[in-house]
Amino acid sequence: MSESPSSTSPVTDAFSWPTRVYWEDTDAGGVVYHAQYVAFLERARSEWMRARGQMQEQLRLEHDLVFVVRAMQLDFLKPARLDDLLKVSVAVKQVKRASIVFAQSIWRDDQRLLTAEVKVAAVSATAFRPVGLDEALYEEFKLLEVPTTL
Amino acid sequence: MSESPSSTSPVTDAFSWPTRVYWEDTDAGGVVYHAQYVAFLERARSEWMRARGQMQEQLRLEHDLVFVVRAMQLDFLKPARLDDLLKVSVAVKQVKRASIVFAQSIWRDDQRLLTAEVKVAAVSATAFRPVGLDEALYEEFKLLEVPTTL
Amino acid sequence: MSESPSSTSPVTDAFSWPTRVYWEDTDAGGVVYHAQYVAFLERARSEWMRARGQMQEQLRLEHDLVFVVRAMQLDFLKPARLDDLLKVSVAVKQVKRASIVFAQSIWRDDQRLLTAEVKVAAVSATAFRPVGLDEALYEEFKLLEVPTTL
Amino acid sequence: MSESPSSTSPVTDAFSWPTRVYWEDTDAGGVVYHAQYVAFLERARSEWMRARGQMQEQLRLEHDLVFVVRAMQLDFLKPARLDDLLKVSVAVKQVKRASIVFAQSIWRDDQRLLTAEVKVAAVSATAFRPVGLDEALYEEFKLLEVPTTL
Repeated sequence: MSESPSSTSPVTDAFSWPTRVYWEDTDAGGVVYHAQYVAFLERARSEWMRARGQMQEQLRLEHDLVFVVRAMQLDFLKPARLDDLLKVSVAVKQVKRASIVFAQSIWRDDQRLLTAEVKVAAVSATAFRPVGLDEALYEEFKLLEVPTTL
Repeated sequence: MSESPSSTSPVTDAFSWPTRVYWEDTDAGGVVYHAQYVAFLERARSEWMRARGQMQEQLRLEHDLVFVVRAMQLDFLKPARLDDLLKVSVAVKQVKRASIVFAQSIWRDDQRLLTAEVKVAAVSATAFRPVGLDEALYEEFKLLEVPTTL
Repeated sequence: MSESPSSTSPVTDAFSWPTRVYWEDTDAGGVVYHAQYVAFLERARSEWMRARGQMQEQLRLEHDLVFVVRAMQLDFLKPARLDDLLKVSVAVKQVKRASIVFAQSIWRDDQRLLTAEVKVAAVSATAFRPVGLDEALYEEFKLLEVPTTL
Repeated sequence: MSESPSSTSPVTDAFSWPTRVYWEDTDAGGVVYHAQYVAFLERARSEWMRARGQMQEQLRLEHDLVFVVRAMQLDFLKPARLDDLLKVSVAVKQVKRASIVFAQSIWRDDQRLLTAEVKVAAVSATAFRPVGLDEALYEEFKLLEVPTTL
């Protein structure tokens, strides 16, 4: 009776991106190779940025800016397999001047396969020195901050 | 005036699959890492099979059958870059009892970046012995054979 | 005068494995793609097991056993670049019946580029159910446990 | 009766580089993912260049020069598996002003698993325009040309 809606439709509120599992993603254990989930998480963050109008190649070439991953906590709950259609969610957990923390999950239907917390920072593309977010980007991301337990 | 339609809309006739370029696909040269195109080609062949109702994971687990690549000729014409949205085409060039030859191309808009000829064979998933295509699969693929120069 | 030897030659005590950075490991940012460090960590754990006489392919085929990663905490300190020769260290932090926690680092000369804590569990290769370590493996790994701050 | 020495020790004459197969290299078919052999071939070419004193990162940063793959013919003879220790050979088949053709093979003990012919060209790292080999590099590589059937 008090079933939370979020348990049956877990990714409606957050941004999520579909990802199909191909041969290249799997290993001889018959499941997705664990490091490949890390790439899946980034694909979704890239699409989340694209949906906001931030083209990363443009940021790199025109503004000498790239986002780099500073820290990452991953929990692998269940394996994904060849041909699975996954959904990778992206939510902004915390925005600071020099970094953003994302809360992400990977789902197959309503099964959560992985949770992650990913801290990224903006750096100069050529020198790899921290540069902080510019004001516009900071304000935009700050608005998206949600107190999430995703 | 006599512009061929195929030069402006090159992939209308063949099956094609969209592929976005992410950080994971690129290398320090600033372009897509050359081996990654080989994976892009397979994603498109997998989707081509899926569109025909052939689920590879099902073939592997229920029929002990996987398709393996036997030979491949690749020509790299132009590089793809981060954020590019590519199209990967698939056409059946030749079907034999023991193998299929695909003609594939990778496009960015109307620019062809890569052409490939890929020969695959059906093998037993457990023993990796050639098993040939079964009659139904052979007939289905034979019908799709096109004298292509793609 | 009281310089700890471990600060100048940091990986002498722990097992470590050399890894060269190739084009495939880098991305368009000019540095190693972040998910690739996760693979580097596993190469070193595989070699650590091999050095102990545990062949993973044999464990999978003969004992239906594979180790899977359950959780991982990664801190990315500095980027690695093409041609770098890295060292990846492996130390056993904690051994339980159902899991092992490794402390790992990636070094370039005496610069630490990454630290990781990796929790793995033994599962049945076919069913992916937790099976725990067998007694011999448990005892062997237990002896290697070190109170490390690596 | 006149067993050729080259059949029992096939890679003595050419440069060859050892490569271990890790989980990351395999796929759900239980063998090495086919695109990964393409990366193995490049690792060996990189080491071949390093053995000649040509550091690619230096060529890129100081001379704005990278080698790119223009064309590739691959024949996949037998699969490699997890834990296999492979040898990847490199021989110079043909050197021209604008390109080099390598003949490469991948071996496990005295079994040949793959043969490849790989054509590379020197391009400007920033503009990706063909620049040809400089005279010193051309002369050095020309001397290494061998009429090989490897």
